[in-house]
Amino acid sequence: MTNDPLVIFTPSGKRGHFAVGTPILTAARQLGVDLDSVCGGRGICSKCQIAPSYGDFPKHGVTVREGALSEWNAVEDRYKRVRGLKEGRRLGCQATVQGDIVVDVPPESQVHRQVVRKAASARPITMDPATRLVLIEVQEPDMHEPSGDLERVQAALRDQWQIDNVTAGLPILRKLQPALRKGKWQISLALHQPANCKTTQILDVWPGLHEGGLYGMAIDLGSTTIAAHLCDLATGAVLASSGIMNPQIRFGEDLMSRVSYVMMNPGGDVEMTRVVRDAINALAIEIAAEVAVDPTLIVESVIVCNPVMHHLLLGIDPVELGQAPFALATSGSLTLDARDLDFTALNVSARVYLLPCIAGHVGADAAAVALSEEPDKSDDLVLIVDVGTNAEILLGDKTRVLACSSPTGPAFEGAQISAGQRAAPGAIERIEIDPATKTPRFRVIGSDLWSDDPGFAEATASSGITGICGSGIIEAVAEMRMAGLLDPSGLIGSAEQTGTDRCEPTGRTHAYLIHDATDQGGPRITVTQGDIRAIQLAKSALYAGARLLMDQLNVDKVDRVVLAGAFGAHISPKHAMVLGMIPDAPLDKVSSAGNAAGHGARIALCNRGARERIEVTVGHIHKVETAVEPRFQEHFVAANAIPHATAPFPELAAIMTLPVVNFGASGNTGEDGGRRRRRRG
Amino acid sequence: MTNDPLVIFTPSGKRGHFAVGTPILTAARQLGVDLDSVCGGRGICSKCQIAPSYGDFPKHGVTVREGALSEWNAVEDRYKRVRGLKEGRRLGCQATVQGDIVVDVPPESQVHRQVVRKAASARPITMDPATRLVLIEVQEPDMHEPSGDLERVQAALRDQWQIDNVTAGLPILRKLQPALRKGKWQISLALHQPANCKTTQILDVWPGLHEGGLYGMAIDLGSTTIAAHLCDLATGAVLASSGIMNPQIRFGEDLMSRVSYVMMNPGGDVEMTRVVRDAINALAIEIAAEVAVDPTLIVESVIVCNPVMHHLLLGIDPVELGQAPFALATSGSLTLDARDLDFTALNVSARVYLLPCIAGHVGADAAAVALSEEPDKSDDLVLIVDVGTNAEILLGDKTRVLACSSPTGPAFEGAQISAGQRAAPGAIERIEIDPATKTPRFRVIGSDLWSDDPGFAEATASSGITGICGSGIIEAVAEMRMAGLLDPSGLIGSAEQTGTDRCEPTGRTHAYLIHDATDQGGPRITVTQGDIRAIQLAKSALYAGARLLMDQLNVDKVDRVVLAGAFGAHISPKHAMVLGMIPDAPLDKVSSAGNAAGHGARIALCNRGARERIEVTVGHIHKVETAVEPRFQEHFVAANAIPHATAPFPELAAIMTLPVVNFGASGNTGEDGGRRRRRRG
Repeated sequence: MTNDPLVIFTPSGKRGHFAVGTPILTAARQLGVDLDSVCGGRGICSKCQIAPSYGDFPKHGVTVREGALSEWNAVEDRYKRVRGLKEGRRLGCQATVQGDIVVDVPPESQVHRQVVRKAASARPITMDPATRLVLIEVQEPDMHEPSGDLERVQAALRDQWQIDNVTAGLPILRKLQPALRKGKWQISLALHQPANCKTTQILDVWPGLHEGGLYGMAIDLGSTTIAAHLCDLATGAVLASSGIMNPQIRFGEDLMSRVSYVMMNPGGDVEMTRVVRDAINALAIEIAAEVAVDPTLIVESVIVCNPVMHHLLLGIDPVELGQAPFALATSGSLTLDARDLDFTALNVSARVYLLPCIAGHVGADAAAVALSEEPDKSDDLVLIVDVGTNAEILLGDKTRVLACSSPTGPAFEGAQISAGQRAAPGAIERIEIDPATKTPRFRVIGSDLWSDDPGFAEATASSGITGICGSGIIEAVAEMRMAGLLDPSGLIGSAEQTGTDRCEPTGRTHAYLIHDATDQGGPRITVTQGDIRAIQLAKSALYAGARLLMDQLNVDKVDRVVLAGAFGAHISPKHAMVLGMIPDAPLDKVSSAGNAAGHGARIALCNRGARERIEVTVGHIHKVETAVEPRFQEHFVAANAIPHATAPFPELAAIMTLPVVNFGASGNTGEDGGRRRRRRG
Repeated sequence: MTNDPLVIFTPSGKRGHFAVGTPILTAARQLGVDLDSVCGGRGICSKCQIAPSYGDFPKHGVTVREGALSEWNAVEDRYKRVRGLKEGRRLGCQATVQGDIVVDVPPESQVHRQVVRKAASARPITMDPATRLVLIEVQEPDMHEPSGDLERVQAALRDQWQIDNVTAGLPILRKLQPALRKGKWQISLALHQPANCKTTQILDVWPGLHEGGLYGMAIDLGSTTIAAHLCDLATGAVLASSGIMNPQIRFGEDLMSRVSYVMMNPGGDVEMTRVVRDAINALAIEIAAEVAVDPTLIVESVIVCNPVMHHLLLGIDPVELGQAPFALATSGSLTLDARDLDFTALNVSARVYLLPCIAGHVGADAAAVALSEEPDKSDDLVLIVDVGTNAEILLGDKTRVLACSSPTGPAFEGAQISAGQRAAPGAIERIEIDPATKTPRFRVIGSDLWSDDPGFAEATASSGITGICGSGIIEAVAEMRMAGLLDPSGLIGSAEQTGTDRCEPTGRTHAYLIHDATDQGGPRITVTQGDIRAIQLAKSALYAGARLLMDQLNVDKVDRVVLAGAFGAHISPKHAMVLGMIPDAPLDKVSSAGNAAGHGARIALCNRGARERIEVTVGHIHKVETAVEPRFQEHFVAANAIPHATAPFPELAAIMTLPVVNFGASGNTGEDGGRRRRRRG
């Protein structure tokens, strides 16, 4: 038995006896308590804040008396004055043990804090980023014991942080000398160490304590949309999210058109590589500016994308992906220098991690969805559909996971839709059509009001009402069906057939008017027969892919469905099911996960172990190749209609009152119908 | 006991029993015999040539009978026809064991063959380069077992070569797909694995068997001269050597002037970095063109240089090196991508290795000299002087090695000399002055004839006689002293004092005429009083540095001296000693090592283990800082005179007949004399 005071940490419960005068930070480190520190106990960074508790703790068997910690000191006083310190907080490196004490480590002082995610179903992320900040004190040079600045930095990291095998690239060697001298031999370093790597790389250096933070960018690089989250690498918080159109669209709207472009124009991939890299640079600058962060403080990026985007981003000819056997140049994960990808907006030493691809048509985006939604840990059979220009579909449970991709085309992202646009302020994202009056009401991105709510005009004055985004067009088509404006084959009825003037003739078919602002010089937003066809093709492809996986598992239904997608608002499960995008399932078992691929990228950004995990997981995912599977075509053709609610799903039947109408003369399904041969994309 | 035939390899003596039908290459591999193969036994590369011996071998206890190897086969026949195969040679992968056999592995079939070096004293280099060529057969992609091309390449390397942890950068990922398909899934890879590295990097890829070779460039980057050797990485042979002026000279002739330039022109280092990188690119292109090698087959380069050149090459501000405590940004060795240094002429994935620096004034060039001359393995006390604009001086034996650098200025490289030039065809490199007639005879680079030999004019017609290089000026000054044209203070006598019209007045001093071609429109080559002063300053600095190290070891003499330097021809030990460049030593103990730093670079290029060795060795070399050592100044001033031969060195006395003359009025040593304050450089 020792007479040294007992120190108990909460919430971990770790405890130990420490000599009087031991700093709380030192005690925490010796016990392996997760207490943050950047400056290593120099009273500079204030990351090691702790909250002492006083009184009787029968549970712990101690009584903590006043004076159990050392007196509030000058360093703490200065901190409280200059930066503020919450009442009851102490600095762990300043407060020393004087008697038995119970010390709480608040979440913001934990390195490996948990970050709660928005999606209800999602597990929290445990922070363990590959890049972290440390402050060191470096020995001054001595001409009689000559050694380089870098070598003394390496020695300091070894002595003060027990970090060995530290490397630095030329940009760091250039900055090190002035930083050391300006910081009076005290510098902050951004250190990068992936989970499976023995070496630690210095990514950046600052004189003294760097207080500007370190940031990471999680990018979901889709065929149509590039979405990015800017994350604080210390807290895991998403500071800003933004998206832009993929400028490669001008070379082809879907993946196969882009591959065809390269086949027809050898070397055409070079230009596509350039524009997508430029776009990511622009996105980084934009997203950082939004929250006044210097983009050169973005030291890491994680990118997920489908295989064609993957190859085009890397500057690899994608033609092999357009023909059997759809061989990837590399399927493994990649850790690259940002400058290799010309990401000049980011930190000059920034690192980029690309998740592994699963197969030639199932990419790092599918891997990211798997990382986010974890089908391989599911007790019940889950179908995960990541809707995009190319849909990623996963089906499985903890015994087995299958994956495929399906060429839905860009309709679900608002492209190839007459009034379509990407999810941005002004885009219609929700829509309801009164089955009696056939009158629509809608909501646009940027306002919570419905179009018939008071104040709607004012609330949307700045953005205007500019078009329909992906989730909006899904709801529009489903609502049109439910309101009897569409027949099961997808044909829009005439004004006579439907009883509303909003169904207006356009050539040989009809269109449904949602919003007309032409009298104010605004747009006229309609859903045309062509739009319906595009959505039908897209949803048939999606449905066919899901069915194909179900065939493989020999099941007719799934226990639950997760709908994900990069486009702004979440997809309404009800409308998705009315439309027949997904196989029937109890409505309360259909959830919306938002941008699951983007979330997966964020997980890999915040937790380096997650990178290792997904690298193993993808090896166990069984790939189904839709392109060579005859049943895919069968399912695709069969899925063209917009179905009724069926008996096993009373929830759906209750909300649907589908009239049995048929607007066509002889089952004609429109100009091009479902018979148009689909190219992959 | 086995009944299997006995296979004995020579020269290694390794032996073992192998089943009938075992290929000799397989037997060699199993026994760890050093038998080369690029294609892994596919009968493609012909690297595994062996020579079977027949008859009685009492020493080995075997009798080898006809038929001990399988019959000469079609693959060998084709090789012999197409490429030629020496009489008695077989391909180790084709010839199989049929009976007891003695197999000789000729030097050219050994991976780790020894390369004999030119310098008499030098040890041979054992070939073990970091980069080697292998051929693999890669599995074709299967869409039902999807994996990337790179992953199947990695699997092939694991299976066929037992090489694991293989990485590839983006340039390789771009080339891999077409190479695999063009080579019908058989490719050659340039694999780079430093000695201390667990991962192997693919540097380049070719369809089928690459027969163009792999090359390395050893570079001695001096303040005045950049010298390069182009080496075959398989054989170690130096295919071409070339040198150019360092274009940084326009920013300052010596190191300190260049550092001063940066101090006066902040950012001026950027331009110096650019020009030296451009020059190395140009040199690579030139040297490769000389032997018709594609410069993109240069996959590795080793660079040695002094610390200021080192920092300027890397783009690091050198100002810290100009002031105490002379702190290096990094002293360790560096392995970089060639593209980080803008070496665009080399292979896009080429690697560059920089030897470690010893201290702020003693650079990687000194480390290279140590690697080449191995003072740390010497039984006797050796002084190694690497003459250049900044001289590197090493003194020691196997118990201790000291090092310093000395700012000699560029005179020894022909700069700051009125008729000086770099060592190139047309430069006077050897000179003799008849003590009786005071007439010179000389040799120029590019011809073995002396100027008074018949045919000299014809032999030098193409180059002309253009100036004097470093070794030439050293001999000229020493010869002038021995011929009585100089007094001990270094003053050139008048025509009257010396008895020759070749001593002609120029202003207040005299010059000695060596060659006059003005009547043919050629140059007039003289040695001026200023030239003598420049050489005196240079040699005093050199001598003072050597003495300083001797003081540290408390010795008055050394056992042997090695003279090295980058400038073309070797320095004549006799003339160096007459001049007083080096402390007195028995003349037969003074040897000339040529470009020892360049040789050190070549060793590091050809043997990756040498890199590890020198990294350890430099840690044990004790650095002496001349800049802050008052005795350096004392030695420097004392060494200004051009000495007599002294008693302990009869060899020198015998060859010297120095007249006791004094051409000055009162010991005046010329315009600026030895009192000019030397800046480091």
